Amino acid sequence: MQDENILREKAAEPLKKAEKLHPLYKGKIEVIPKVPVSNLDYFSVWYTPGVSSVCRKIVENTDNSFEYTSRWNTVAVISDGTRVLGLGNIGPEAALPVMEGKALLFKFLGGVDAFPICIREKDPEKIVEIVKTLEPSFGGINLEDIEKPKCFYILETLRKEMEIPVWHDDQQGTATITLSALYNASKIVGKNFSDLKIFILGAGSAGIATLKLLVKAEVDPGNILMADKKGVISRDRTDLEEKFGVYAELIRQTNRENKKGDYHEGFEGADAFIGFSTPGPGVVTKDDIRKMAKDPIVFACANPTPEIWPWEAKEAGAKIVATGRSDFPNQVNNSLVFPGMFRGVLDVAAKTITDTMCIEVAKSIAGYAEEKGLSEEYIVPRMDEWDLFPRIAASAASSAVREGIARKELTHEEELENATRTITRTRNLMENLEITGLVKNFFHETD
Amino acid sequence: MQDENILREKAAEPLKKAEKLHPLYKGKIEVIPKVPVSNLDYFSVWYTPGVSSVCRKIVENTDNSFEYTSRWNTVAVISDGTRVLGLGNIGPEAALPVMEGKALLFKFLGGVDAFPICIREKDPEKIVEIVKTLEPSFGGINLEDIEKPKCFYILETLRKEMEIPVWHDDQQGTATITLSALYNASKIVGKNFSDLKIFILGAGSAGIATLKLLVKAEVDPGNILMADKKGVISRDRTDLEEKFGVYAELIRQTNRENKKGDYHEGFEGADAFIGFSTPGPGVVTKDDIRKMAKDPIVFACANPTPEIWPWEAKEAGAKIVATGRSDFPNQVNNSLVFPGMFRGVLDVAAKTITDTMCIEVAKSIAGYAEEKGLSEEYIVPRMDEWDLFPRIAASAASSAVREGIARKELTHEEELENATRTITRTRNLMENLEITGLVKNFFHETD
Repeated sequence: MQDENILREKAAEPLKKAEKLHPLYKGKIEVIPKVPVSNLDYFSVWYTPGVSSVCRKIVENTDNSFEYTSRWNTVAVISDGTRVLGLGNIGPEAALPVMEGKALLFKFLGGVDAFPICIREKDPEKIVEIVKTLEPSFGGINLEDIEKPKCFYILETLRKEMEIPVWHDDQQGTATITLSALYNASKIVGKNFSDLKIFILGAGSAGIATLKLLVKAEVDPGNILMADKKGVISRDRTDLEEKFGVYAELIRQTNRENKKGDYHEGFEGADAFIGFSTPGPGVVTKDDIRKMAKDPIVFACANPTPEIWPWEAKEAGAKIVATGRSDFPNQVNNSLVFPGMFRGVLDVAAKTITDTMCIEVAKSIAGYAEEKGLSEEYIVPRMDEWDLFPRIAASAASSAVREGIARKELTHEEELENATRTITRTRNLMENLEITGLVKNFFHETD
Repeated sequence: MQDENILREKAAEPLKKAEKLHPLYKGKIEVIPKVPVSNLDYFSVWYTPGVSSVCRKIVENTDNSFEYTSRWNTVAVISDGTRVLGLGNIGPEAALPVMEGKALLFKFLGGVDAFPICIREKDPEKIVEIVKTLEPSFGGINLEDIEKPKCFYILETLRKEMEIPVWHDDQQGTATITLSALYNASKIVGKNFSDLKIFILGAGSAGIATLKLLVKAEVDPGNILMADKKGVISRDRTDLEEKFGVYAELIRQTNRENKKGDYHEGFEGADAFIGFSTPGPGVVTKDDIRKMAKDPIVFACANPTPEIWPWEAKEAGAKIVATGRSDFPNQVNNSLVFPGMFRGVLDVAAKTITDTMCIEVAKSIAGYAEEKGLSEEYIVPRMDEWDLFPRIAASAASSAVREGIARKELTHEEELENATRTITRTRNLMENLEITGLVKNFFHETD
């Protein structure tokens, strides 16, 4: 059993360090040429007059912009700053450091050129309109930290109306890695995945998107129970449209027995608990875990502190415990998904990311962990298992080709090689910049 | 005298090369980390949970985003694709290679992180609205290749309503370098600048913006004559509002004598001709030049071919000839202005770029050439005179401080050092990428 005070102190360290280091570097990303410019003559090819022949090729066919520009590898990380981390509605300026961090992850893990765009607009219709106008410059859109319920409407509308993949990590990313973890957890406890009785606490973007993907993955919605702050969501609640917008109807299909009561009721007889609720500890109690079915699966994913400490869950009989944190086993983290997912869909210039693709990627991630050897403490890969990302890319790319939404056809093998090469180049690039002192490392000087 | 056929063949080369090289590199820019990421632990500082302390600093004061993020050095290169190079309204996808090229110039010459955003929206009101929502992510806006007359309205509105510099190179950039060249040309011919009789052919964005800046620089508008396709613009033309929008009134102050007739009439007695009209040769004739006052100043800036070949203008008596081309002396090129201008205004986090700042930068550019030694063949610096750009930056920054629109105060000396360091780092970075093979050079393999 660990000491909570030590954990709390340790948790404050990165915040202090971030505050010191960010103004030293004055931002985390830069835009650089990826073509040679040995002298000014090169601009007659990269710029006027030469570039006009390239423009003409794109006039012939706008899809040529995926061949002749950086568009194919470029993703916009877009936020309105309304629900940033645990900080809430802090506005677009204050959201920017987070979006830059996300861009860093995109490049480091997936070799993707991601650019942060924080917009000063909160109206969902206008956000949809603005993001749509940005389409010609990008190969994909990553929505980030947008509050619910408008995030549901914005994502679904943009997915329908844009010809490039649109992704909201808090929805699809979290749902995909959760599905992945649940696949493997069910194998370990020896239960049939599609028969699982699942209790989801927290009906925000992560909870709703997970519900949606579980149902697509053939879990009977009647076997799923959801709860929010008001308690277990029964079919006769009158606020579903207001709270869940386009997903109200889906929620009405859950909770076959139409249970009611506070959220603690949801644990009764559940095979798996999935928490995306408020930071714990103490949100979920040992008594809650004891009410679950045999060999309970407990995903306590609230950030930064799980709904229940893993050791407490174990003491109460949990067979498998996962959290959102890197300092405990089984980190259910959407950063495992998006870098490889985007690497893959960008490499085939996909027009969207379907739910089927999410399910196939979830299976591919689960398969990776299974090959390495599943255990109660290893149901999903760890972030430092680099070879996972090209695997995910290959799975996403080949799935996109099968779904018929890829502009380019690549096989699983081809994309595995492709993605490995691209990600390796990025690593080499970053290593080189540090070795040559072009990026200086003050990281330990500020300790 | 040169052979036109050879010139024409030579002109086709960069176009062929561009078409071969662009798909090899698949775009010209990439987004990379400028902070070290030696392992995944670094993300607890650059991303969650550490980054939340940085967000809080910006919540305290949104201007802190200029200290804690890349915003301070980041410019959006925005186009709607309605007037791209000489190609016209080719749409946002086809405009992207040009905007990427511009981003390349921004980084290579000014050390500025520029990101191309081509938008699928043509309505000026909506363009204004969209660009305004992007403000929180950027330190400046560079509008590019937007057709007139809406480019006038968009620029002026955004300059008023945004708290970061907004620039339209075809307007302010061209006007600034033209003013610079005219300052020095008037010195060589020994005429008083503010008494010059000036004939501007071409009333597009470059012509109008030059008119505007000349008047700000104390040239009497009555001494300026403008002409468009319909001929010399007289005060009784009824289409001025429709064609020139917000600048109709300014145009009405030109042409004191209310001359009329086709554009050839405009040369009569003019001290200086400034052409931003249609590609020549033959748009301007030797007879036109012969009609001008003593020691004619001829700026034939149509692209890609000047209104009159320089040797023809000289033969007809022109004392000084400038063009937009790098293969003739006296290249009047806005790429001399924007990299240093943005370097300077970004370094002091300026809220706008005033016309006064443009005039001061024009004088600083003219002063640079004067120090090096003016001649009929050297009235403006050449693009390869690298030390010009930090000079411009220092001039822009100190001018912004004097104008009271800088968030940070830097002296001319400080910014000279600052800008030199930033631009040198970029050069080293690019050189390093090529040396290490992270950026490969296929430039000569395709010959």
